[in-house]
Amino acid sequence: MLSSTAADLDGLYGPGHQLCTTPNGQVSLVLSREREIDLFELEQLCDAVGWSRRPLRRVRKALQHSLLVVGLWRHDPRLPRLVGFARCTGDGVIEATVWDVAVHPLYQGAGLGKQLMAYVLGRLRAMEVERVSLFADPGVVDFYSAQGWQLEPQNRRCAFWYSP
Amino acid sequence: MLSSTAADLDGLYGPGHQLCTTPNGQVSLVLSREREIDLFELEQLCDAVGWSRRPLRRVRKALQHSLLVVGLWRHDPRLPRLVGFARCTGDGVIEATVWDVAVHPLYQGAGLGKQLMAYVLGRLRAMEVERVSLFADPGVVDFYSAQGWQLEPQNRRCAFWYSP
Repeated sequence: MLSSTAADLDGLYGPGHQLCTTPNGQVSLVLSREREIDLFELEQLCDAVGWSRRPLRRVRKALQHSLLVVGLWRHDPRLPRLVGFARCTGDGVIEATVWDVAVHPLYQGAGLGKQLMAYVLGRLRAMEVERVSLFADPGVVDFYSAQGWQLEPQNRRCAFWYSP
Repeated sequence: MLSSTAADLDGLYGPGHQLCTTPNGQVSLVLSREREIDLFELEQLCDAVGWSRRPLRRVRKALQHSLLVVGLWRHDPRLPRLVGFARCTGDGVIEATVWDVAVHPLYQGAGLGKQLMAYVLGRLRAMEVERVSLFADPGVVDFYSAQGWQLEPQNRRCAFWYSP
């Protein structure tokens, strides 16, 4: 843990930030819905997890119109680095939907994805959202079901329509 | 068709309204994203299709924070009646998600659900939304796949988390 006070962390990440539990005590990782995401840094993270690029102006607008945007930061008092991300759309009352959950490959396998999702659900619970949904790729179905998500309740199936 | 002029219809339903094609020429049905939805009338519609009730103040807030709210109206120059409904949440750029698609049982089987969905997709396409998603109950999977929706592309599965 670097010698940052709680006030330092509040200044960098906002008062709603949360320190992650990590096996490696040398690195501090912080979850924040308040620290602004740099779009170029987000693009680098998306590159690292193998997602296709999008025009930054569209990403900017999508983030602005999201219900919740969460960054996972590798703490550095001068320059925190974005190493994880998730966002939600929704009405903030009845429905919220989680998109774009990413943890940088170098930081995977340490329980950070789980902490990121718990942080997201905590913020949505504070809004009193009734129901949260997501579309799980086959490789992460077990990850979500282990955390209490119900897979296809009532045999619901997901459908997508792509703009021509 | 009642003797309403285009200006009358614009006044009631907004300039973006669309007349439905119906087998019965005596009844005019109109799609609108602009005419305000009365919450009590929406509750009656939800009752008619068998959905559980929600507190109206929460429904009001959910509609206010929706990306798109569409009513299907049985035209009457004095008092249009709400006979169908759909809404979307989303960022309006990359993602939109369709919720709460309903057509009153008395008006089902006339192709109105299909026209309602086409209207919704038309509005989302105008926003240049990349991708639209929904969670299909088993009984409506064929309805959506017949209209070009892809069921579970890339074997994605839907997951829900319900607030405790």
